[in-house]
Amino acid sequence: MQLLEGKGVALKIKEGIKLEIESLEKKYGVRPKLVSVQVGENSASEIYVKSQEKTARELGIDYELRKLDGKTTQDGLIKEIDGLNKARGAHGIIVQMPLPQTIDAKLISRFISPLKDIEAMHPQNMGEIVFGKAKVLPCTAAACMELLNSVPALELYGKEAVIVGHSEIVGKPLALLLLNKFATVTV
Amino acid sequence: MQLLEGKGVALKIKEGIKLEIESLEKKYGVRPKLVSVQVGENSASEIYVKSQEKTARELGIDYELRKLDGKTTQDGLIKEIDGLNKARGAHGIIVQMPLPQTIDAKLISRFISPLKDIEAMHPQNMGEIVFGKAKVLPCTAAACMELLNSVPALELYGKEAVIVGHSEIVGKPLALLLLNKFATVTV
Repeated sequence: MQLLEGKGVALKIKEGIKLEIESLEKKYGVRPKLVSVQVGENSASEIYVKSQEKTARELGIDYELRKLDGKTTQDGLIKEIDGLNKARGAHGIIVQMPLPQTIDAKLISRFISPLKDIEAMHPQNMGEIVFGKAKVLPCTAAACMELLNSVPALELYGKEAVIVGHSEIVGKPLALLLLNKFATVTV
Repeated sequence: MQLLEGKGVALKIKEGIKLEIESLEKKYGVRPKLVSVQVGENSASEIYVKSQEKTARELGIDYELRKLDGKTTQDGLIKEIDGLNKARGAHGIIVQMPLPQTIDAKLISRFISPLKDIEAMHPQNMGEIVFGKAKVLPCTAAACMELLNSVPALELYGKEAVIVGHSEIVGKPLALLLLNKFATVTV
């Protein structure tokens, strides 16, 4: 058995992204911008948002937090997202969870343009995983694959993989990603 | 061990669909129409198309076969599909495989509107399976689920399921469907 450590892997990935963003800026004069939408106050969200902002800035990504009133309706939030979908200056959109109970979080995911949906929660992006053509991935599933990729000379072909849990954001997409690498997967 | 027979199940489903279509026609005056697009000649396709047409007519579905010249280009086929996407009279679209080698079949699937994509080959429809919200399903995967549903009092919750093969049209979507029923799935 081998326990995989994420910190070193994350550091390497971050370095790579930083360089990519630098060259993107030099070549095209574009600096990526992530817009985070938060509805109401939530202490867990606050911490998460701060950590997102810190990492984004470290990597050279602009980060804008749009705090909407806790009384924002579902339609109001959808309008806000739709504006961001059309905004040329916003390249990625992330909606902070949890949302107020009056808003259907799963429904909201469908209104983020698949092109700006960095968490890959739009059905279209999820479906691309089945076809092995995903350009964005749900983050925890992607992290598991990065951890596995970090093991030198690990060949997933024919390996038996066991996933505990079959959530929409981790278990199911991870199973698909492992199947794409020709592993035998049990969920 | 129990071998499941599909014929009886199919018959029952067909009867149900026939009734649904009759009531749809009475209520809204609409008769569903399936348009099948075939590029060039192919003996396997011919048989398949004939069987589709026969079943469609039995159920009260209008069936139109559009035979395009074998020299049709990829762009030409996409234009044809786009016209059908917009046509109010065409409710379902099916593109016959195999396509000529000059046409990328997987790319073509992406041009059928998810609303008319009765084979669920558009990434958006595939992604809906992950979320347990699919309105259309890849046919063989759907058939497997119907077979399982036909077993009286079979509870899939916690059952161990083994799928041999992990194709995009059968294995992967079937794994997702079984996971949605809380089975433990090995692919």
